[in-house]
Amino acid sequence: MDSELIQKLSNLLGDRISFSESVRNNHSKGEDAYDPVLPEAVVFPNSNEEISKILKECNKFKTPVTAYGTGTSLEGHVVGNNNGITLSLENLNKIISINSDDFDCRVQANVTREQLNESLKDKGVFFPIDPGANAALGGMAACSASGTMAVMYGTMRTAVLGLTIVMANGEIIKTGTRAKKTSAGYNLTNLFVGSEGTLGIITEIQLRLSPIPENIMSAVCQFQNLDSAVLTAQEIIQYGASVARIELLNKDQMDISIKYSNLENMDSLPTLFYEFHGSESTNKESISVVEEISKNNGGSEFSWASTTEDRNKIWKARHNVYYSVKAQGDDIRVYATDVCVPISKLVECIQFAENEIQNNGLKAPMVGHVGDGNFHVTIVYDPNKENEYKYIREFSNKLVDKALELEGTITGEHGIGLQKKDYLIKQHPDNIPLMKMIKKNFDPNNILNPGKIFDL
Amino acid sequence: MDSELIQKLSNLLGDRISFSESVRNNHSKGEDAYDPVLPEAVVFPNSNEEISKILKECNKFKTPVTAYGTGTSLEGHVVGNNNGITLSLENLNKIISINSDDFDCRVQANVTREQLNESLKDKGVFFPIDPGANAALGGMAACSASGTMAVMYGTMRTAVLGLTIVMANGEIIKTGTRAKKTSAGYNLTNLFVGSEGTLGIITEIQLRLSPIPENIMSAVCQFQNLDSAVLTAQEIIQYGASVARIELLNKDQMDISIKYSNLENMDSLPTLFYEFHGSESTNKESISVVEEISKNNGGSEFSWASTTEDRNKIWKARHNVYYSVKAQGDDIRVYATDVCVPISKLVECIQFAENEIQNNGLKAPMVGHVGDGNFHVTIVYDPNKENEYKYIREFSNKLVDKALELEGTITGEHGIGLQKKDYLIKQHPDNIPLMKMIKKNFDPNNILNPGKIFDL
Repeated sequence: MDSELIQKLSNLLGDRISFSESVRNNHSKGEDAYDPVLPEAVVFPNSNEEISKILKECNKFKTPVTAYGTGTSLEGHVVGNNNGITLSLENLNKIISINSDDFDCRVQANVTREQLNESLKDKGVFFPIDPGANAALGGMAACSASGTMAVMYGTMRTAVLGLTIVMANGEIIKTGTRAKKTSAGYNLTNLFVGSEGTLGIITEIQLRLSPIPENIMSAVCQFQNLDSAVLTAQEIIQYGASVARIELLNKDQMDISIKYSNLENMDSLPTLFYEFHGSESTNKESISVVEEISKNNGGSEFSWASTTEDRNKIWKARHNVYYSVKAQGDDIRVYATDVCVPISKLVECIQFAENEIQNNGLKAPMVGHVGDGNFHVTIVYDPNKENEYKYIREFSNKLVDKALELEGTITGEHGIGLQKKDYLIKQHPDNIPLMKMIKKNFDPNNILNPGKIFDL
Repeated sequence: MDSELIQKLSNLLGDRISFSESVRNNHSKGEDAYDPVLPEAVVFPNSNEEISKILKECNKFKTPVTAYGTGTSLEGHVVGNNNGITLSLENLNKIISINSDDFDCRVQANVTREQLNESLKDKGVFFPIDPGANAALGGMAACSASGTMAVMYGTMRTAVLGLTIVMANGEIIKTGTRAKKTSAGYNLTNLFVGSEGTLGIITEIQLRLSPIPENIMSAVCQFQNLDSAVLTAQEIIQYGASVARIELLNKDQMDISIKYSNLENMDSLPTLFYEFHGSESTNKESISVVEEISKNNGGSEFSWASTTEDRNKIWKARHNVYYSVKAQGDDIRVYATDVCVPISKLVECIQFAENEIQNNGLKAPMVGHVGDGNFHVTIVYDPNKENEYKYIREFSNKLVDKALELEGTITGEHGIGLQKKDYLIKQHPDNIPLMKMIKKNFDPNNILNPGKIFDL
């Protein structure tokens, strides 16, 4: 890094630039399986204007900038650049406005989903997109995240109404409006959603909210085998029943979660967690359909989470699956992958994944937002055993090929980052030149999170 | 047009290229208020490959190409280019596949929404996006259209899962997959949705479908004044009640529709058309909420459309409002505009529009997808009276300024075309350089629908 640039950034930020190894180490990767890469410095701007000034300088010096939120990426998005800086958004943590009458709000990039929901609590509205981690909303927008309620409420792609973005040259632009829909020119909002910090740094997000349902019911249903559980999910969706959440945990994941999250009343069996949002009577109706389909596929009696506390326990266990797998050992790493296929292909795809792994004597905790055809495999491995990683990557290749063969996608919600660059070439060979064209125009010096999504 | 290009296209297309004045005239504009501009020729390709060849040649000769579907645009999108050709998509009219188990289908660009729904009839699914016209799905994607059911089912932005596009250089690319969600690289699908034929020609569309609801109930409620009707819509949305359609027709529009669509049992008063999709019991519940809110605002007893025939009559009347206004005279033109604001601002915005027009002694039929905060003003004028058009444009300027002041958008669903280019500059001055950058890269010779959305 050029000493002149260091001087300029230091003048601008005072003690809000850090060169300390521990700070750089804390901003060297996400929750993924990558080796840390320490940036040369970490900066902590307070405003859009400061970010603009930082980018303007870095652009002049062609110095890479990786934006960093809560660091909960699973695909290497925030792995640092050893010739660049990491830009922490941690000071952009304010909720700018809440309009509960219009079901929308505007937040700064580092407001987390839980922080937002805490603020919305007494306003009759909530924000329904919930990846496992308590992620920052800027990062969620950048990675086109979703979560357990996408089946009813959509994803970041549909929830983001507009953005404030700082471009590579320091320009600050604002996309979208507060209107629910718009046809005003090219949809730049959705171009930045999912751009993983490579086209601009998202600093503010205008979000759609949802009314808190009058009645919420959560239930757990266990199955003797994986296929029956997945088929149940598939049939529920195909029936068109109204479910807010329909989440799968396979046997290996249940083994882990029962211990990690104290689910003592559950068995180590493939399991579906359900949630219903509506009025008491509409929920009753949906539940009766879902119960019948579950029963026809050999599902257990529903175990109901009747109190808010019980309900929170179930969903906390679900949100913590990744951490529960990580807690399986000190020296392990976890390879997490995510594919998404049409619902009619879900049984075949999940079965394929489980067979492949079991045949190799490995443990494969799996969870799925099965209502969307989306599931995750998390594989624990020893980073010192080269063969293990090699095998996992081979498995991942096969799973991705299978998902593509079934007309699905290589990632439903985790994004590309570093881990899926080769797979993106498989999925969209003819799209990549257009993506690169956009990248090169928006960021001609390739300073914004270089090396992520694709290599230029 | 270069004679060599004419020769090449003629060799390729045989009698599927036309230079006749009547054919050119039929492809010279949409249903908008523009003067026709005749292209030099109209071509009728049969396949993606032929479109690719046509574009490749036109690109070489830098000859403009305007794609033409059903010609139902309201903003000048398909006004011809007198130095270019118009490319009719009429032969791309096949439904490629229907996967009712996965709620998706793939269609060629010129399949219309009614044609698609006719094919889906016995499959338990339907396609819910319904602009007034029986538009082609390619055009609907290109203009980011929506319709009366967006409040429950979303818009083209959310319904399109993927596209086949022929680029200016003739390259054929495919975006998206059949999965319900994806985070695989930049969201090119949503960049092309709403690009109005300026970035590529959409030839195939992968669409999400919805299950046909078990029970459908339609009702009509009339109000003594406009504010009460709009406030009712606003309160219903703010309550979070489940409605599939909530459409406003103001008094001037009702005057016209009662005659045009034989709504003899209705009065010439501001009116809301409702529709409820669900089960019998969930609909009952929604209806009781909606009835109560309507009554509190002075609405009439609901008049129920109890048979499918009655229901179709109501919605046909709604879909035909534009044609009903056009039928007001032979020598008139109709200026249609559309803005969309946050729901809490809707009363203010609609009131503003009606006052402005009434104060000038004009008739202003207005209709609105009021559940989305979106409404249309259609103004009849005599094209020979210069003052009338001038006034209308002044009104339109004021309405757009008001919508922007209320944090809304200059167009909820009609797009920019020719008519709103100045307004786009008002709404997104800082977005336009990025939009132009994309345009210049995707279409360096500016052959694709030049002059629409913005001037380069």
